[in-house]
Amino acid sequence: MSQINVGVIGLGRIGRVHLENLVYRMPQVKVMAASDIDTASHSFAKNLNIPNIYHDHEAILDDPAIQAVVICSPTSTHLKYCKAAAEKGKHIFCEKPLEITIEKIREIRDFVHGCNVKLQVGFNRRFDKNFAKVHAMVAAGEIGQPHILKITSRDPGPPPLEYLKGSGGKFMDMTIHDFDMSRFIVGAEVEEIYARGENRVDPQIGVIGDIDTSIILLKFSDGTLGTIDNSRKAVYGYDQRLEIFGSKGMTKINNVLEDDLEHFGEIGGRKPKLLHFFMERYTDSYFNELNAFIRAILTNKPVPVDAHDALMATAIALGAKLSMRENRPVRLDEIL
Amino acid sequence: MSQINVGVIGLGRIGRVHLENLVYRMPQVKVMAASDIDTASHSFAKNLNIPNIYHDHEAILDDPAIQAVVICSPTSTHLKYCKAAAEKGKHIFCEKPLEITIEKIREIRDFVHGCNVKLQVGFNRRFDKNFAKVHAMVAAGEIGQPHILKITSRDPGPPPLEYLKGSGGKFMDMTIHDFDMSRFIVGAEVEEIYARGENRVDPQIGVIGDIDTSIILLKFSDGTLGTIDNSRKAVYGYDQRLEIFGSKGMTKINNVLEDDLEHFGEIGGRKPKLLHFFMERYTDSYFNELNAFIRAILTNKPVPVDAHDALMATAIALGAKLSMRENRPVRLDEIL
Amino acid sequence: MSQINVGVIGLGRIGRVHLENLVYRMPQVKVMAASDIDTASHSFAKNLNIPNIYHDHEAILDDPAIQAVVICSPTSTHLKYCKAAAEKGKHIFCEKPLEITIEKIREIRDFVHGCNVKLQVGFNRRFDKNFAKVHAMVAAGEIGQPHILKITSRDPGPPPLEYLKGSGGKFMDMTIHDFDMSRFIVGAEVEEIYARGENRVDPQIGVIGDIDTSIILLKFSDGTLGTIDNSRKAVYGYDQRLEIFGSKGMTKINNVLEDDLEHFGEIGGRKPKLLHFFMERYTDSYFNELNAFIRAILTNKPVPVDAHDALMATAIALGAKLSMRENRPVRLDEIL
Amino acid sequence: MSQINVGVIGLGRIGRVHLENLVYRMPQVKVMAASDIDTASHSFAKNLNIPNIYHDHEAILDDPAIQAVVICSPTSTHLKYCKAAAEKGKHIFCEKPLEITIEKIREIRDFVHGCNVKLQVGFNRRFDKNFAKVHAMVAAGEIGQPHILKITSRDPGPPPLEYLKGSGGKFMDMTIHDFDMSRFIVGAEVEEIYARGENRVDPQIGVIGDIDTSIILLKFSDGTLGTIDNSRKAVYGYDQRLEIFGSKGMTKINNVLEDDLEHFGEIGGRKPKLLHFFMERYTDSYFNELNAFIRAILTNKPVPVDAHDALMATAIALGAKLSMRENRPVRLDEIL
Repeated sequence: MSQINVGVIGLGRIGRVHLENLVYRMPQVKVMAASDIDTASHSFAKNLNIPNIYHDHEAILDDPAIQAVVICSPTSTHLKYCKAAAEKGKHIFCEKPLEITIEKIREIRDFVHGCNVKLQVGFNRRFDKNFAKVHAMVAAGEIGQPHILKITSRDPGPPPLEYLKGSGGKFMDMTIHDFDMSRFIVGAEVEEIYARGENRVDPQIGVIGDIDTSIILLKFSDGTLGTIDNSRKAVYGYDQRLEIFGSKGMTKINNVLEDDLEHFGEIGGRKPKLLHFFMERYTDSYFNELNAFIRAILTNKPVPVDAHDALMATAIALGAKLSMRENRPVRLDEIL
Repeated sequence: MSQINVGVIGLGRIGRVHLENLVYRMPQVKVMAASDIDTASHSFAKNLNIPNIYHDHEAILDDPAIQAVVICSPTSTHLKYCKAAAEKGKHIFCEKPLEITIEKIREIRDFVHGCNVKLQVGFNRRFDKNFAKVHAMVAAGEIGQPHILKITSRDPGPPPLEYLKGSGGKFMDMTIHDFDMSRFIVGAEVEEIYARGENRVDPQIGVIGDIDTSIILLKFSDGTLGTIDNSRKAVYGYDQRLEIFGSKGMTKINNVLEDDLEHFGEIGGRKPKLLHFFMERYTDSYFNELNAFIRAILTNKPVPVDAHDALMATAIALGAKLSMRENRPVRLDEIL
Repeated sequence: MSQINVGVIGLGRIGRVHLENLVYRMPQVKVMAASDIDTASHSFAKNLNIPNIYHDHEAILDDPAIQAVVICSPTSTHLKYCKAAAEKGKHIFCEKPLEITIEKIREIRDFVHGCNVKLQVGFNRRFDKNFAKVHAMVAAGEIGQPHILKITSRDPGPPPLEYLKGSGGKFMDMTIHDFDMSRFIVGAEVEEIYARGENRVDPQIGVIGDIDTSIILLKFSDGTLGTIDNSRKAVYGYDQRLEIFGSKGMTKINNVLEDDLEHFGEIGGRKPKLLHFFMERYTDSYFNELNAFIRAILTNKPVPVDAHDALMATAIALGAKLSMRENRPVRLDEIL
Repeated sequence: MSQINVGVIGLGRIGRVHLENLVYRMPQVKVMAASDIDTASHSFAKNLNIPNIYHDHEAILDDPAIQAVVICSPTSTHLKYCKAAAEKGKHIFCEKPLEITIEKIREIRDFVHGCNVKLQVGFNRRFDKNFAKVHAMVAAGEIGQPHILKITSRDPGPPPLEYLKGSGGKFMDMTIHDFDMSRFIVGAEVEEIYARGENRVDPQIGVIGDIDTSIILLKFSDGTLGTIDNSRKAVYGYDQRLEIFGSKGMTKINNVLEDDLEHFGEIGGRKPKLLHFFMERYTDSYFNELNAFIRAILTNKPVPVDAHDALMATAIALGAKLSMRENRPVRLDEIL
């Protein structure tokens, strides 16, 4: 196979990012159709000359010419859409979170597996050049045996309270990326989690029962220790760093800055600002992940992030929630 | 006007860059045709689904539906093609150097002006985000009155000797970008030039009468002093830096690095590599300059880099050549 | 008072550092005497022209002309020497750890207090210019309300096994500095500790029942969360960093490097090495702490680090030990 | 010889720095005497317990117990004092500039040489750890054959006009350090100089016939090209950088900063300030140069910076002056 026909389900913010990447930057793809139940979003697809634009996803799944779908609809639809797509024999790229319970993720995983189609999950950060490089360095033994992992992940500001109410909590909504990254970088499974959360940014977030500041301590199966610190609000911007320390050295990912300038004036030296948020910081990763998905189909190789990865990250998030609630370390085998 | 039909003349390395940018990233453009006398390069355009692909540029110029041309053919064709395109009423984006003599640049400038079409010259570095920001900072008075400008511009390796023989010499071929950048950043004209050149990298370059290492001292009309240092070979990569110092402070452009990692191992700390060469370092600038050209046409505004800019950069290069030959400072009014 | 007579007890490595600082850099001090039970070390004091050099500390304590003593003898002597010195009315600077049990520290604290002399404890890192500046920034509200504290503290290599056997364990021997730093920077007390330790560096360290790699999670009384990561062996050198994140921003202390050079060669960019170990990294802090002690005496002001600080750091270390042993978060009031 | 008796002539700012270094940090030295015609400065030496404090330098030179003198009196006294000291068989450390004419430097050089005593000149920057390291790297071939040298040297603010009137002009007063550094780093002699100077900082400096901003282009005997840029006023502090580029790579000396902090707040990232001026930036170099002088005497080795070095730096400064006046490149053999 050298070309592939794709349909995109859901034309919200992230769906549009994927659609543009598919249309503009992937010559081996032809986008045959797009759908969204909000017809106001159809004009976006129309401007990109997508041949078929539907209200419902079924029309896409019914089109036998389409070989793969990119699912960007709300999380609550993932179970249904993934199963329907798999049933029709279509390969699936599904946005994160795949689902928010262990049971439903297992259901998707097993069903899709039975249909013999590929399913990739949208943990896009793995495809950022910096994280990908460090993963490769660790895998190649360049830092030796890993001893300590440190992830800093802080947002420039919290989402609206309405969003937070339905988000499943900070660990499931925000830290899930860091949980996935932990496994990806260390190359071992998390065995035990201890999580502390606080409400420091906005009292309203506490009122709805969520936290906005946390530190999580991870123990991996190979003896590596890890720590993740999160905040919903860093006034200086989207703070995304990682450090892995091992027997042969240490590698850090620093923040990506807006430019390469240094300025010194009467009041001192100035550094460039951080890139604003994930759409700016991880732009290329969205293209890269989809490209990897398409390549996996065209070459019939395994996808790089699958339902098992979604399952593990979700289990760690659930473990963190339990740990925080009971203020005790939780073993992952209590969850799985 | 909200859309524009464009033809591309010349499908060499840089022509292909422009063609891809026009096709993939500029929805307001329709590429109607491309031409190259080397038919081997036609397949590139074919793969991008360009409707008409010609051997000769005339077919493009004869097409009344085409409103603008992008000229990427060899320098020796620029005078002829620019005049022919202007005569047909087409706006022109022409790669640098526009021409290599003062007389011919004036001829193009005057002819094009008489035809009432726009002509933009491809000094792409002005459109790199870093250089553009510093230009804006200086223009906004953020560094005060400029006092000292410093440009470092070193290539990772020299081009083939065959290329160098026809290049017009290092000042015309390589430093011309730095001469244009000098005027762009300082915002004043160069009045006097003193240039020293040496043959340090490869004796063969000396044999053909060229230099590979140089420092140029510039005196600007507002009293600012500037220096440019060049080398044809920096073993560590494409070294592109600039510093502007003034009464209110100093701003530096540092090199753009491959990633945002820091590594510390047994033998010490490691910094990321520099981006390899101009195609990697200035990727976005090629898109930005063409986008600015199209926008200038659509909004009927002046183009940001015109024949006068080409004239001035060329005059400085000729002044530098004369200065080096006679080992004395040369006033620009000796040239112009 | 404008000058002060001092005696130094113990002429090991750190005793010599203090002696040189007193002699060469503190004109307001006259070192009247030094003592060490190892007579081989006496020549060091002799070369500095110290008038009286004794085998036993009693001779120093008996000298009525001496107003202050600097105790650098082994930890096991601290209780006895501090009490004896206080009884004789001498102000005391005592190296860390003051003692390793809560009871003995309380005994020293109360006894010394009863004698109405000053007692300063040698937590020298507080007097490093970087840590002192960040402390001042936090105290001045420049980072707003603290939310997250992160300390990285890794040694270039483990001490000899023989030393480790009598060290009281990694938390008491090494992390104690970080526990003190936590309180110093955040400006609130630690309420709860969760500690994980591993044996990753050298199996022999595990054999003697100690750990060499750890992460500790701290919960402060004001809601701030903190994390400390330690290793006994960083192949790239003595890694000493700190980060404090709050409602108004974030401040980091980076490692202090050997020089201010950047080198780029054929194999890439190189960063300067880290300073080797604490004697190089914290050189000035040893002078600064002693200077602060002398100033406190001369101006009759409180010392900047006292027995209470020793007590709290020790309690946190004991809490960390208990937490690791029982794998559960431990509240500091279980210890105190 | 294992100890040496020294006298210090001149107790102004730099004389005091040397005196403190000799007294506090150099156990192999005994300062026997100090002199200054300004008796107000005698108390400084008294506080350091210098045995003999004189009004006139003769008393120092007449003391047969003194083996070496450190001359920190005004430049106009250097010829007379150096000759008198040499006549008495005393080794000489003399502050820069040794003298400001070629003839007088030669006179000193030849006279001192005839007396068979050592004479070191105070080009202290060679003894800064960064510059010394780069010198060693170049000498060891680590950057290959040098191609380009770049020095930036900018003061935080101009000295008083009264001082400037007697300073000999910017090249002689300020750039002389950079001229010496050029020879020191490149390891070859300057052959030709082209200098441009401007009056940009303060019109009053122009009124007295001096410049405050300049760029100098140097051609070395081995074909290396160099550039030095100076300003009398950098609002952000004392800007001292150097870069050497060669066939094997490039090494840069960055500015030395006040601390190792990074701060990110709502308005962006902040870098530490530069060290204020030469007393802060080059503190250690003053000790190191004197220590090297003393070591040269004790081991009977040549001093590291001698009258020839003073001669060459002065000649380059005179060449730069002539070049600026006549606006033409000047060969050094026109001066020497």
